[in-house]
Amino acid sequence: MPLEKKQPCFILVNPQMGENIGASARGMWNFGLERMRIVSPRDGWPNQKAVAMASGAGRLLDEALIFPTFNDAIADQNFVFATTARPRDLIKPIYSPKEAIKLASSKISKGQNVGFAFGPERSGLENSDIIKANAIVSVPVNEQFPSLNLAQCILLLAYEWMLKSTNLSSDKSNSEGSDMVPLMKVEKLSQYFEHALENSGFFYPEDKAESMKANFRNMWSRMPLTNSDVQIFYGMLRQLLRTNKKS
Amino acid sequence: MPLEKKQPCFILVNPQMGENIGASARGMWNFGLERMRIVSPRDGWPNQKAVAMASGAGRLLDEALIFPTFNDAIADQNFVFATTARPRDLIKPIYSPKEAIKLASSKISKGQNVGFAFGPERSGLENSDIIKANAIVSVPVNEQFPSLNLAQCILLLAYEWMLKSTNLSSDKSNSEGSDMVPLMKVEKLSQYFEHALENSGFFYPEDKAESMKANFRNMWSRMPLTNSDVQIFYGMLRQLLRTNKKS
Repeated sequence: MPLEKKQPCFILVNPQMGENIGASARGMWNFGLERMRIVSPRDGWPNQKAVAMASGAGRLLDEALIFPTFNDAIADQNFVFATTARPRDLIKPIYSPKEAIKLASSKISKGQNVGFAFGPERSGLENSDIIKANAIVSVPVNEQFPSLNLAQCILLLAYEWMLKSTNLSSDKSNSEGSDMVPLMKVEKLSQYFEHALENSGFFYPEDKAESMKANFRNMWSRMPLTNSDVQIFYGMLRQLLRTNKKS
Repeated sequence: MPLEKKQPCFILVNPQMGENIGASARGMWNFGLERMRIVSPRDGWPNQKAVAMASGAGRLLDEALIFPTFNDAIADQNFVFATTARPRDLIKPIYSPKEAIKLASSKISKGQNVGFAFGPERSGLENSDIIKANAIVSVPVNEQFPSLNLAQCILLLAYEWMLKSTNLSSDKSNSEGSDMVPLMKVEKLSQYFEHALENSGFFYPEDKAESMKANFRNMWSRMPLTNSDVQIFYGMLRQLLRTNKKS
């Protein structure tokens, strides 16, 4: 079957072992996925152990995009899923792999950039990264033995992608336009508000400021913001601040 | 979720590397499968490399049943699936993993014994063994890179078993938490903001005010707001207005 060229990227965040990066590339390419991004791999880049393990999927490593931070890696993405076995105390939509791939496929067919983020082997994604994602993917596992490794998790998501993309039902349902802003803009908007609120003494008392900010950022990342929404929010805040100065 | 006790057995036929047997045990137990059978493992039994790799799933190896031949391993089974990437020239039903698991589940619920057979790493199942199976399972892979290894293939089948036995499709987790506010509250929040912005001269010029307000309301109505989000937005605006008055 012909490979689907419009596809999500898989973002490996701080992967540790080269072997796992190589095995992840294999798992992706087994199911026709080609776009790997890597955030600050522990052992630097390129990594010979990754190359050795990837064998026939080495091209994915050659073409992988390397980023210094998670923010950089997701900046041009419209929607990012964070894979985590343990959804923390965050109010964020949680999808099974199948549901997530279905949603991703629908968004991609409308021209959006969709990424799946995978944390480092031992610890998984940091809470601060999960907050920036739009949704969570959680693989249903045996609670008595939930330890899926990085490459296995990637394999399962890639498998679901293959199932979905070879089952090409032209998905025409659109509730979310193609106008969704890239996450970088949401991040900037969130910072802009946070800064203004910081100045106005919103984050108080001080010992709760950090968790208030985390909630605040998480809220923005869950909002399906279009370009014009973002303009409205900027305009709103500017206007309120301007009135502020005049009085 | 409680594990399904009535389950298929996974039969590893002439596996070569102990590491792969261990990884297979892990993959099975990740998804709640416990019954491993092994036909004449190349390096004998028990195998220390298998044990080392299996870590938390070592019990499956302790309890694995070892058989000298494929015939012995399938003797008490009512139905056996042969996994193979390349269906040979055999007239035999071919199922996807999902279809196969569905069929297996149905048979198991009727009290039948169902096995899935996996061939040795390099060569896969012999034609003479496939012939003895009732049906073929074939994982849909990228034809340009079809090389799934033994443990990966087992992982995917076990994953499908987990999906089937926990019937996750009906489980939307807390996709959009139960904490979503009723629309009435969104409406009030929107009005509150609109009112403040009206006072600050946000809706300008006047002939565009109505359409700006319509956009504004539409935006709020699209936001998946929880109770705590609504509190944040109220708090945000109040704080900005308060700062306003003080200055």
